[in-house]
Amino acid sequence: MTAPRLPLSAYPSTHLLPTRWADNDMYGHINNVAYYSYFDTAVNALLIAQGVLDPQQSSVIGLVVETGCQYFAPLSFPDTLTIGVGVERLGNSSVRYRLGVFRMQEEQPAAQGFFVHVYVDSRTRRPVTLPPELRTVLAQLVLKAPEEG
Amino acid sequence: MTAPRLPLSAYPSTHLLPTRWADNDMYGHINNVAYYSYFDTAVNALLIAQGVLDPQQSSVIGLVVETGCQYFAPLSFPDTLTIGVGVERLGNSSVRYRLGVFRMQEEQPAAQGFFVHVYVDSRTRRPVTLPPELRTVLAQLVLKAPEEG
Amino acid sequence: MTAPRLPLSAYPSTHLLPTRWADNDMYGHINNVAYYSYFDTAVNALLIAQGVLDPQQSSVIGLVVETGCQYFAPLSFPDTLTIGVGVERLGNSSVRYRLGVFRMQEEQPAAQGFFVHVYVDSRTRRPVTLPPELRTVLAQLVLKAPEEG
Amino acid sequence: MTAPRLPLSAYPSTHLLPTRWADNDMYGHINNVAYYSYFDTAVNALLIAQGVLDPQQSSVIGLVVETGCQYFAPLSFPDTLTIGVGVERLGNSSVRYRLGVFRMQEEQPAAQGFFVHVYVDSRTRRPVTLPPELRTVLAQLVLKAPEEG
Repeated sequence: MTAPRLPLSAYPSTHLLPTRWADNDMYGHINNVAYYSYFDTAVNALLIAQGVLDPQQSSVIGLVVETGCQYFAPLSFPDTLTIGVGVERLGNSSVRYRLGVFRMQEEQPAAQGFFVHVYVDSRTRRPVTLPPELRTVLAQLVLKAPEEG
Repeated sequence: MTAPRLPLSAYPSTHLLPTRWADNDMYGHINNVAYYSYFDTAVNALLIAQGVLDPQQSSVIGLVVETGCQYFAPLSFPDTLTIGVGVERLGNSSVRYRLGVFRMQEEQPAAQGFFVHVYVDSRTRRPVTLPPELRTVLAQLVLKAPEEG
Repeated sequence: MTAPRLPLSAYPSTHLLPTRWADNDMYGHINNVAYYSYFDTAVNALLIAQGVLDPQQSSVIGLVVETGCQYFAPLSFPDTLTIGVGVERLGNSSVRYRLGVFRMQEEQPAAQGFFVHVYVDSRTRRPVTLPPELRTVLAQLVLKAPEEG
Repeated sequence: MTAPRLPLSAYPSTHLLPTRWADNDMYGHINNVAYYSYFDTAVNALLIAQGVLDPQQSSVIGLVVETGCQYFAPLSFPDTLTIGVGVERLGNSSVRYRLGVFRMQEEQPAAQGFFVHVYVDSRTRRPVTLPPELRTVLAQLVLKAPEEG
C-alpha cells in the first residue's frame, strides 16, 4: 500500500465523527480496529444520505472484499475527527474507496485507508453491475489523479 | 428500575452523539449493548471537559459498580442522538448518574439508564472520598427531584 | 436490583466465552459495556443451538426492553469466562434472563446481570405469545427459587 | 496485497476464537471490522502467553502502523474460528504478522490479513530495537517462504 497521503482538501466528501470512550485501548489511544468502523460509518452514511443504500430493502448489497489502513499519528478520545471519503477506482461491479482520518482543522491525515465493495445480488451473492443511480453518485466522488499525489 | 421517564429538558447537561454503522445489529436497530457505550462516552466526555478526569494520570478512578437501561423505542443508524446526563445521587465516595437517550428534537426519551461510579485509589482499589473539585462539578448536575417525575 | 448473587452451580446452562483485547478499556480491565455483549452472545447462542432462534427468518423476534448488571470484581483480557444463563421469570410474551459472569473454576460471580426479552411480530412489532417450542426450551432453564438465594 | 492464501497448516501458531452476536452486522454476517479485533486478540494473547507482553508495565510497546485484510467467504455468529498467526517479516524494530481466519476444520482461509507492529519506547514513542526475548519468540513464528505460496 504505497498510496500517497491525501490532504483533507483532496476529498470530495467529508464526514464528522466524534470519538467514543470505547475507541481508546489500554494504551490510551484509538485502537487500530476502530478506524475501520469509522470507514464503514462514513461510507454507509454517505450512500444512505444520497438515497442509494437502503440496508433493509436493497436487492443488491456491497460486500467488503478488502480493507486496509496506515496509521501515521495517534488519536484519542475525546476528539472530533473528519473522515474524508473519495472513490479511487470505479469498476463495473466494484468500487474502491480512499478514506482519510483527520483531526479537526488539520490538513494532513492521522491515518489513511481504503476499502473495496463488490456489489452482489443479496440472495445469490453473485456480482452484479453497479446500479445506475449508485454509479452516478460514485462518479461524483472520484478523486482527481490520486496516484500522483 | 421504576424511575420516571425524564424529558430532555430535565437534564442539566447534554451530549450530541451520532450513531455508527456498527451500532445496528442484525435486526436493523441499535443493539442494546451500544447504549452503554453512549453512557460511558457522555459521562467521561463531560468529566474530561470539566477538567476532573484525566484517565492516564488520575490517582483516583471511578469504578463502574452497576449499570442499567430501559429501552422504549427503537433507534437506528444513521441518526444523531442527544444524551442527557444528570446526577441522581451524590454520595461520599460514589455518584449515580441518570442518562437519557433522545432522538434529535424529541422531548421524550427513546431509552433511559443509569450508572454508578465508586471512586477508588487507582492502586489499592479502595474507596476514597470524592475529590472536592469533582464534587463541585457533580453538585451542579444534580437532577431536581427526579423521584417525583 | 437486589437479586441475590447466584453461584455457578445454580445456573441450568453455561457458555464459555474467551475475552478479547478490545474488551479491556484504558484502565486495563474489561469495560462495563462488554458484559452486555457477553449476555447477548450467551443467550442467542443458546436459543440458536436449541433451534428456537433463526435471526434471518423468524417472524417473531425478541426485543430487549430492559437490561442491567452489577460488577463485583474486575476481569481482564486474556481470560476465559463462563457465562451462566437461567430464566428468572417466564411471562406470556416475555422472558427475564438472569446471567452470571464467572472466571473459570470460580463458584462466585464476578458480575451478575439480567435482561428482558419481549417477543413481537417482526413486522408489526406488537407483542405476541411466546412460540410453544421456545416456551418449552425456556421452561427448562427456569432458576430454582432465585428470589430466596 | 497480493500475498498467497496460506492454508491452516502453514501457520506456526493458532488461536481459537468463538464469534459473538455483535460481530454480525445488518446483513447477518461477520462485519469486516470484527476481523481486525480477532487479529489484535490472537497476536496479543500469544505475546502475553509467551511472557513477552505486559500491557500495563512494558517500557516498550508495539504501535500498529499498518493493517489489512482480504475477505474470501462470509462468516457468521455462532461459529468458532481458528486464527492462524505467523511472522512474515522480522525487522530491527518492527514485525509484520500474517493472519488467517479459518472456520473450524477447514484448511482454506475465509479471510487473510496482516498487521505491522513497530516497537517504541512507551514514553518517547520513538522506535527501539526489539527486546531480545521478544525476538526469540517471534523468530519461532516465522512463516516458511510465504512469498512463494
